[in-house]
Amino acid sequence: MANAESVRLQVFSLNCWGIRYLSKHCSQRYAMLGDMLCKKEHDIVLLQEVWSEKDYLSLKQKLASCHPHSHYFKSGVIGSGLAIFSKHRIHDTFLYRYSLNGYPYMAHHGDWFGGKAVGMAVLSIGSLIANIYVTHLHAEYCRDKDPYLPHRVVQAWELQQFIRHTSAGADLVILGGDLNMHPQDLGNRLLRTSTGLRDSYLETAKFDGCEDGMTLIADNPFISKNEILPFEKGLRIDYILYKGSPKVNIYCDYMCTTKGSVPDHPFPYSDHEALTAELRLETHTPSEAQSDKKLWKHDSAAGKVAELVDIMTEARTEVKVGLHCAERMRYTATRTGVMGLALLFLELAIAAVPYLALGAEQPFPLTSFYMLAGLCFAILLTTFLLYIFKTMELKSLQGAEDQMRLAIGSLQEKLRGFPLAQPHSTQRRPPEGLEPSAFDPEE
Amino acid sequence: MANAESVRLQVFSLNCWGIRYLSKHCSQRYAMLGDMLCKKEHDIVLLQEVWSEKDYLSLKQKLASCHPHSHYFKSGVIGSGLAIFSKHRIHDTFLYRYSLNGYPYMAHHGDWFGGKAVGMAVLSIGSLIANIYVTHLHAEYCRDKDPYLPHRVVQAWELQQFIRHTSAGADLVILGGDLNMHPQDLGNRLLRTSTGLRDSYLETAKFDGCEDGMTLIADNPFISKNEILPFEKGLRIDYILYKGSPKVNIYCDYMCTTKGSVPDHPFPYSDHEALTAELRLETHTPSEAQSDKKLWKHDSAAGKVAELVDIMTEARTEVKVGLHCAERMRYTATRTGVMGLALLFLELAIAAVPYLALGAEQPFPLTSFYMLAGLCFAILLTTFLLYIFKTMELKSLQGAEDQMRLAIGSLQEKLRGFPLAQPHSTQRRPPEGLEPSAFDPEE
Repeated sequence: MANAESVRLQVFSLNCWGIRYLSKHCSQRYAMLGDMLCKKEHDIVLLQEVWSEKDYLSLKQKLASCHPHSHYFKSGVIGSGLAIFSKHRIHDTFLYRYSLNGYPYMAHHGDWFGGKAVGMAVLSIGSLIANIYVTHLHAEYCRDKDPYLPHRVVQAWELQQFIRHTSAGADLVILGGDLNMHPQDLGNRLLRTSTGLRDSYLETAKFDGCEDGMTLIADNPFISKNEILPFEKGLRIDYILYKGSPKVNIYCDYMCTTKGSVPDHPFPYSDHEALTAELRLETHTPSEAQSDKKLWKHDSAAGKVAELVDIMTEARTEVKVGLHCAERMRYTATRTGVMGLALLFLELAIAAVPYLALGAEQPFPLTSFYMLAGLCFAILLTTFLLYIFKTMELKSLQGAEDQMRLAIGSLQEKLRGFPLAQPHSTQRRPPEGLEPSAFDPEE
Repeated sequence: MANAESVRLQVFSLNCWGIRYLSKHCSQRYAMLGDMLCKKEHDIVLLQEVWSEKDYLSLKQKLASCHPHSHYFKSGVIGSGLAIFSKHRIHDTFLYRYSLNGYPYMAHHGDWFGGKAVGMAVLSIGSLIANIYVTHLHAEYCRDKDPYLPHRVVQAWELQQFIRHTSAGADLVILGGDLNMHPQDLGNRLLRTSTGLRDSYLETAKFDGCEDGMTLIADNPFISKNEILPFEKGLRIDYILYKGSPKVNIYCDYMCTTKGSVPDHPFPYSDHEALTAELRLETHTPSEAQSDKKLWKHDSAAGKVAELVDIMTEARTEVKVGLHCAERMRYTATRTGVMGLALLFLELAIAAVPYLALGAEQPFPLTSFYMLAGLCFAILLTTFLLYIFKTMELKSLQGAEDQMRLAIGSLQEKLRGFPLAQPHSTQRRPPEGLEPSAFDPEE
């Protein structure tokens, strides 16, 4: 392109595994990370699982000269764990808390207490407006039988909604984080197809890192083999995704990951591998881009929309599975609660016998009476809390399902508008950076 | 304008007061409302406090022919109570749940259980993309000493963030709902100044309705005088706000409210008055608008930014007040919890005396022992839950304060960029529909 201007952007992303006193070598790893970030001077640093604000503040202090702009996203009981450091000015930030995020009674999994969310920062890079997103979705503890799958699908749904709706004014979009989803997982396909975001690992011209871009690997000393079963070598669940706009094309020239260890150090930065992507932004006049865009749009748009309808239908099915589970649990809670109440009445009735039939002996030893009553109250309280929680879960799942149904209907309507819809015709690639969202309203 | 095209849009908004079995004449009022909406055929109907999905579904059935498109926003334990009915196709919806919304232990106020949120629907009106928002903020129960003020300010903050960040791609923006804020309240100023939304009551060419556009009036038979004290006649807390874009100018030609009663009916639709705004959209080519925009932009932009900085600083102060209250409450909860624990240990120690000093008599009657232990556990559980809840509240308040600080810093930076900043110079009005957000990034 004749009057194209080129800017380079280095983006770094890492799940820091920063649980103070519980994660191994936590403070040493933060110190190592801080040193490395100071030296490498990436443009944008996206961190997840920075659970303690103290660690964020000490990083902030250390990076003050190379990354003068930063933000820590607060949410939930413990926090969202999300932080961003930037060379470029942060103008504005916004946080979206996912409506579903596991269960408080699964305390050993801890996700609920983290208040998972997606953080957004609006940066100006030269004359460009960049929307930067950082997120961390619910972990997958068991791939075969994953009770959190509907929650993660709803999180992916809300993530794509948030990005799609907030990025219309941006010249470029970057998302970094631990998605806890494999590249071909439902939520990942949903996210990429509906937003048009591209995976830097798949797009990069040059890659240096773990096999298949894996970010949770068996070679990492903090990983136990059980965690990554049934995958022997590891998984790819951390990503840097990006997309341009009519004004900017983005190319990924180089990408690398750490490989389970850090030279000259006894251990790696985290149990996850760190990702670095070198992006090249090419700005040009929108008019050129628009004409390019029109050239290919009709060719691939129908295919994209049809693909998105398929993915959304799959997601909706998954949400329905979650709905059934939550309904069953709520029903069980209700039944147990009623039984607790019945037991309490029975006990009170038996205890009342001596007062009604004078002379009859009190059949209950006092100790058992109080213990049984305590049990009944505990049952009632637990089932009541569970009922409230499950109702909230149901509302969120139903809400997501309604939104999906509406979006599918709207996309199908759009599909009918295409004169010669050729589903999944993806032979012709659009020019870089012009990947549209299949949601783009037609005019 | 030479090639301007004009479209009319009727928008209706009402807080339905739809608590089944508790609100007076609930089902009759819904029936009346349904009949009226069928007859009037507004383009867009925005309802709040539709607490029961059944009521939404029966309205949906009734309005199927005149308002074929609709959406009910689900959230929280009871729901968000928000619904939208539309003549125009709804393509997409999105819900943002406010991070703060009162307290679960203030059950008699009930706001927490409602899961307050802002719902968004993307409509196509001819060739235009319209972002329609409907919301309901936390109620004000006592104006003089309002413990919920920081929560409402944070809700207004999140509302303006949500609208600002999601509406960049829209040709027009409409917000309807019960804001529970007077026209000059902090949250209202924050919302209007940062988004550039205009109040249809203030902008309308012709108005027919209650004095000063009031929407909660003493003449309404469902209102008790105590509710609206210290205001004798009533308050204005329900709004229809709008803004255009470089492509569309919006004018409000006519606005009306109900006046406490409905002709030929024994009672009004709700305890709030219903609002109807007749908007006129004028589309034109963006290039014309751009040149118009440039003409006045430098004049008023600095004033707008300075005004917004002032309002945000005020909002930040209010959030800080909330922070102090929440911190004090959490401290009290911690102290009470520690005392409960100490009491439990003391009791166990006394009860253990007979076992340690053989022959000593058990000083505790069993009943008192169990009752005291029960009390200790109740204290521990309550203070623990309160501690968790207050921590979450603190996190959200801190998060909002951080975001405000960052935004103020960014605006101040921008202000320094203006060559001749004249704070509050609002003599010249921009052309209709071109009201910018003070947040618009400069290029």
